[in-house]
Formats: sequence, structure tokens, C-alpha cells
Amino acid sequence: MRAGPDRRTAICGAVLELLGKVGYDRMTMDAVAALARASKATIYRLWRDKPGLVAEALVHQFQHAVEPTDTGSLRGDLLALTGTACEYANSADGGVVAGVITAATRDPNLARALRDCTYEKKRQPSETVIKRAVERGEVDAGTSASLLHEVLHSMVLARRLVDCAPLDRQFAEHVVDDVLLPVLTRQV
Amino acid sequence: MRAGPDRRTAICGAVLELLGKVGYDRMTMDAVAALARASKATIYRLWRDKPGLVAEALVHQFQHAVEPTDTGSLRGDLLALTGTACEYANSADGGVVAGVITAATRDPNLARALRDCTYEKKRQPSETVIKRAVERGEVDAGTSASLLHEVLHSMVLARRLVDCAPLDRQFAEHVVDDVLLPVLTRQV
Repeated sequence: MRAGPDRRTAICGAVLELLGKVGYDRMTMDAVAALARASKATIYRLWRDKPGLVAEALVHQFQHAVEPTDTGSLRGDLLALTGTACEYANSADGGVVAGVITAATRDPNLARALRDCTYEKKRQPSETVIKRAVERGEVDAGTSASLLHEVLHSMVLARRLVDCAPLDRQFAEHVVDDVLLPVLTRQV
Repeated sequence: MRAGPDRRTAICGAVLELLGKVGYDRMTMDAVAALARASKATIYRLWRDKPGLVAEALVHQFQHAVEPTDTGSLRGDLLALTGTACEYANSADGGVVAGVITAATRDPNLARALRDCTYEKKRQPSETVIKRAVERGEVDAGTSASLLHEVLHSMVLARRLVDCAPLDRQFAEHVVDDVLLPVLTRQV
């Protein structure tokens, strides 16, 4: 019997739930099989190994970011962008990233999947925010959307993983007013 | 027989080596005992549990940061500060942080130890750099050393954990010129 897309989806869903709960290194294939009501033989027929399975589960979960609505100003757009990043870090998705990060620093394939899913796929909204700000004349034409994306991602990631502090509205305003706006509107 | 300080040090050293090699969740007490040539009974007499042992090993390893030499300019001081942070991330210490981070997001005591050791203890050099820049008239008197510390730490941590990219001189210059200097010398 071939495993259909529903079976793949169920197995990936079980993987994500376990990653958020116990983390990559404590997640066993037995637990995945039990939670997905699948046999280990099925899992190993579909995926060569644990990193391969987790990489597909990540791709399955992390979609491209939604285009941010136009608030009419750079500051408003940045607050919306940062608020969305904080919501994402506070959600089950943030728990999955936290659960995989130690393992990803030791496995290049896992690292690539994590980076693609959480960083590269989330890049477009930063491009949109900068494009609008250039059109409004709020920033120079050469302003880097990659820089915005990198700094925002770094601030939110560090807050989520190390700071033991809430990712709330106050934090979002701090990131926007104290870091992102000075970086993007610098006087060279 | 009581375990002396040498025995404690040997056990903490074994813990750090294993954290860097396999990470917290895959580190067994049996492996610690074998590497430190100690009995598990000794380890459990000295520490109540695995998080307690790892927290002490972290404190043992991560010392206060050394005061940065005065280069004569804010940019020079920031490059030295960022270079040191990158060296630290590239060293065995960075591997220990990577090995503990998933577990720390699920254990508040471990999270506190990690934050104290890698973040709070490293704060002083940022204070020194800002104090000198204020004295030289390069930044306003109210410029926040905490902000410098937070942004620098976030950029280096994200680069180390997710970016799969080198923490080299080029990255340090990027952090200083594109992020830290605009944040610290903003025109309000």
C-alpha cells in the first residue's frame, strides 16, 4: 500500500507537535509513529532518516509570509511587521524553531531547512515595506530590505531564545524606534 | 570521601565538552561520569539533577568579559568589541551555547543560567565603550549601553545559530557600520 498525501501530512503534523514539546534530540521515531498512527516501516519508506523527515515537516509548516497591509507610514509598517514576527515567535512555530535549533547547529541539512523556512521564506514583507517607504520618500532609494530583515530577525530570535522576556507590543516599539528606524533612516 | 574542588572542576569540564559535542539532550550522566572518571554516585551527591549540574558548568566556564582596550574612537572600540563577540561565538564556548539552547527554552533554571553567563556577564565592555564615546563627544550623554549590548548580542547570536555564515571581519564591519553606529549616533 502506498502512503498518500494525508498520511504524509499526519506524520509531519506529529513531528511538529513533538518538536515543540520535547525538541529534536528527544523526539523518537517510535513517538512519531505512535502519534501519527503510522508504522515505523511506513515512515522509513517515505523518509531516509530523521533529519530528512524533520526538514520536510518544517517546509510543510512554514509558509511564505503574508504581505503586510499598508499603514501609510514607514513606522506603522515596521510596527506591523515586527508585531507579526513577535506573534510568530510566541506561537507554536516559535516552539518548533526552539526545539530544532541545537540539532540544526550540528546538522548542515537541518540547518539549511531551518534557515530556508524561518528566514528566507519570510523575506518578502521586508522588501514590500522598504519599497513603499522609498515611494513615500521616507528612506533613500538604496535602502536595504535585507538589512531590515536581518536585524529584525536577529532581535526577535535572541529575545525568544535567550532573553526570557515577553515579545509584546512594548518590545515591538523598542525594536522599531530604537533600532530599525535609526538603521533605515541613517544620515550618512 | 568528600569530593574536592578538583573533582568538581573535572566534572564540569566533562559536561562542557559533551555539551559542545552532542548537546544537552543527548548528554547522559553515564557519559559525564566516564569522561570525568567519576562515579555517578559522586555526581548525584554534588548536584541534585542534570539542569543543576549544567548550570554550574556554565558558570564555571563563562567568566566576566575582559575590558576592551581603548582604540581612540567609537568605531574602533565597536570593531574590537564585535570582533571579540565573534571570536567567542566561533570558539568552544559558542558550541556550548548552541548545545544548551533548545533545552534552555524548556527549563527556566537552565535559561536563567544561560542568560546570566552569556548575556549579563558580558555587559561591562559595552558600558566602557559608551562611557569613552561620551567622554570623546562622539555620542550623546544619554546613549544606552544596554541597547548596544542587546543589539550586538542579537546579531551575533542569530548569525551563529541560524545563518550558517562565518563570523569574520567582514561580518563585524557590517554589524558596526550598518547597525551599531546608526543606532548609537542617531539624529533624534
